Amino acid sequence: MGIKNIAILGSTGSIGQQTLDIVRKFPNRFKIVGLAGGKNNRLLARQVNEFQPKFVYSKHKADTPSSIQWLTMEEIASHPDVELVVVATSGKAGLVPTLAAIQAGKKIALANKEVLVMAGKIIMAEAKKYHARLLPIDSEHSAIWQCCHGERARVARLVLTASGGPFYRYPRHRLGKVTVEDAIHHPTWKMGKKVTIDSATLMNKGLEAIEAHWLFSIPFDKIEIVIHTKSIVHSLIEFVDGSIKAQLSYPDMHLPIQYALSYPNRLVNHNIPHLNLVKTNSLVFEAVDYKYFPCLTLALEAGKKGGTCPAVLCAADEIAVDMFLNRNIHFTSIAEIIAETMNLHQSIAYPALEEIIVADDWARKTAAKVARKRSLC
Amino acid sequence: MGIKNIAILGSTGSIGQQTLDIVRKFPNRFKIVGLAGGKNNRLLARQVNEFQPKFVYSKHKADTPSSIQWLTMEEIASHPDVELVVVATSGKAGLVPTLAAIQAGKKIALANKEVLVMAGKIIMAEAKKYHARLLPIDSEHSAIWQCCHGERARVARLVLTASGGPFYRYPRHRLGKVTVEDAIHHPTWKMGKKVTIDSATLMNKGLEAIEAHWLFSIPFDKIEIVIHTKSIVHSLIEFVDGSIKAQLSYPDMHLPIQYALSYPNRLVNHNIPHLNLVKTNSLVFEAVDYKYFPCLTLALEAGKKGGTCPAVLCAADEIAVDMFLNRNIHFTSIAEIIAETMNLHQSIAYPALEEIIVADDWARKTAAKVARKRSLC
Repeated sequence: MGIKNIAILGSTGSIGQQTLDIVRKFPNRFKIVGLAGGKNNRLLARQVNEFQPKFVYSKHKADTPSSIQWLTMEEIASHPDVELVVVATSGKAGLVPTLAAIQAGKKIALANKEVLVMAGKIIMAEAKKYHARLLPIDSEHSAIWQCCHGERARVARLVLTASGGPFYRYPRHRLGKVTVEDAIHHPTWKMGKKVTIDSATLMNKGLEAIEAHWLFSIPFDKIEIVIHTKSIVHSLIEFVDGSIKAQLSYPDMHLPIQYALSYPNRLVNHNIPHLNLVKTNSLVFEAVDYKYFPCLTLALEAGKKGGTCPAVLCAADEIAVDMFLNRNIHFTSIAEIIAETMNLHQSIAYPALEEIIVADDWARKTAAKVARKRSLC
Repeated sequence: MGIKNIAILGSTGSIGQQTLDIVRKFPNRFKIVGLAGGKNNRLLARQVNEFQPKFVYSKHKADTPSSIQWLTMEEIASHPDVELVVVATSGKAGLVPTLAAIQAGKKIALANKEVLVMAGKIIMAEAKKYHARLLPIDSEHSAIWQCCHGERARVARLVLTASGGPFYRYPRHRLGKVTVEDAIHHPTWKMGKKVTIDSATLMNKGLEAIEAHWLFSIPFDKIEIVIHTKSIVHSLIEFVDGSIKAQLSYPDMHLPIQYALSYPNRLVNHNIPHLNLVKTNSLVFEAVDYKYFPCLTLALEAGKKGGTCPAVLCAADEIAVDMFLNRNIHFTSIAEIIAETMNLHQSIAYPALEEIIVADDWARKTAAKVARKRSLC
């Protein structure tokens, strides 16, 4: 096996940093040729210093060695020197660079859910056209992908597991009062702030269902969501004969990241803890109470409607979560803002990319307007 | 897909009958060309009448239509008209016919554990030489096989699940007093009598570990056994990166039998109940108490020693279980008889088939002698 040349879009985020852990662990397998950071310019500078990439993108250019070329994310994602692009951006930031990587026929390790949620139809069609390979990094989709290996038969049913987040079994009437601190303490996974809040509302699981719908071309009525608070069974698939396969491990994103990087091989990494089934003792699965998690219902509705609806869902969610994190709205207002924004939206059935971007923009403005009525400030 | 021509060796046993259920369900996929029965001649006659095979074997020939050819099991297993041989015999009966099928390059759906336990080294070498394909039917090995599909990486660890049988959590001091009726009521699986008793002693799990050792060329120290009383997770495998895959379903042998028959395809069969995870609620895994299950320890020791030891283990177990079923000995004497027989045995390190058969014969006689001292009659 040769060395794999990798670019990370969103290298300063949670997934980006964990990807660099893997690259650091296997210097003979992976080489960083491109890094694109977000707001954390200091961290990006440290990463550039350590990994000496050829190409860097940052909103704020800094003094760097002259050997480094400043490029846009699209230029990095499609550069001939890059073999695999890790899309670890969040929100809509990854959409256009992912398309650029696809059209350059790259391998794409995808952690940015919104890319497929916003434009699944276009992304999958382009990936097919340009023979680009999408390698999921989300633990649930990685699980499904791993379980599909070597199977001719199509998946008959898919069971996405959800941890339930910090508010599973929380008294419903007290949800309006939860603080940012309550919400960002996820019981099992260490993740970025946005996705942690999305896990608390179960919006995250809805986005994952939409992503799975596109990645594994499975209809929504064949996607089941169950609560599994320990986050050890990452998802399950059922084949037509009733045989079910599941993928398990302790909740640690390093594993699915490493797998997307090393695929089709697997690498020994003693930093990743191996599951002790007897110590774990029990794996419990419970039904989701949809009334308790209105964001999940909204996401599944948007997924089924299709068109520009999922893009509007994502945009409204980004605005609402941001306002919650800034302590401008109550936790329960997140779902209300998304619902109202979606109600006001007139969906386009088969949108072009530009129409999706327009819908996103409209949704952000509308959600902000809707939110202002609920603002605590 | 064309129709698959199948011969069943041991068609009147539990696995044989369930194989015929599958053939009955898919008359356009599978055709019975050969049947070999055991002692139940009446049932065999009914099967012959229903499935109209070309070739039949029985210890006791009966009046049958002249269109039927009486052959030996080896002749059926290696006949050019047979594509897939289901080896559903029990004990050592399947060994020579399986070798005949292998040397004729057949696909072999293997349910007869003792074949690999007695002669794993020879069987695997011959299968490689003649490009014969071994398709496991045991639920545990089917699970492992399914989870290995499409994986380049070798299995790093294998977790065999054991139901624990009817005497898991049974007061230890009362084990000597259990009756045949107590022992043949398995909590989760419907199986033949011999394998049900082997499940109660956990000998069955030991034989499965030896089988897995050969089928998946995995050392014994990488095979873990855990108690999982619901028999829903049929086994798990761990890859070098720590990712674990598991296969799940309600305990019903029709599923692994159908899969071995339909492989690499999967067929819709509404007679096989589909797993409801939420209803199942919890999947529990517990450590095995090896002191409580001496037969398991004996089997693992025999597997590790290799040579003629596993054949002696099987033979002594067959004699001891038979005597228990005939109410000649106590349940706890099964392990004692096997242990004493094994102690008296002088193993041959790399035995030829003939030496294995001699060891088997010696073990039967020795076990019977040993047992007589413990006989209740």
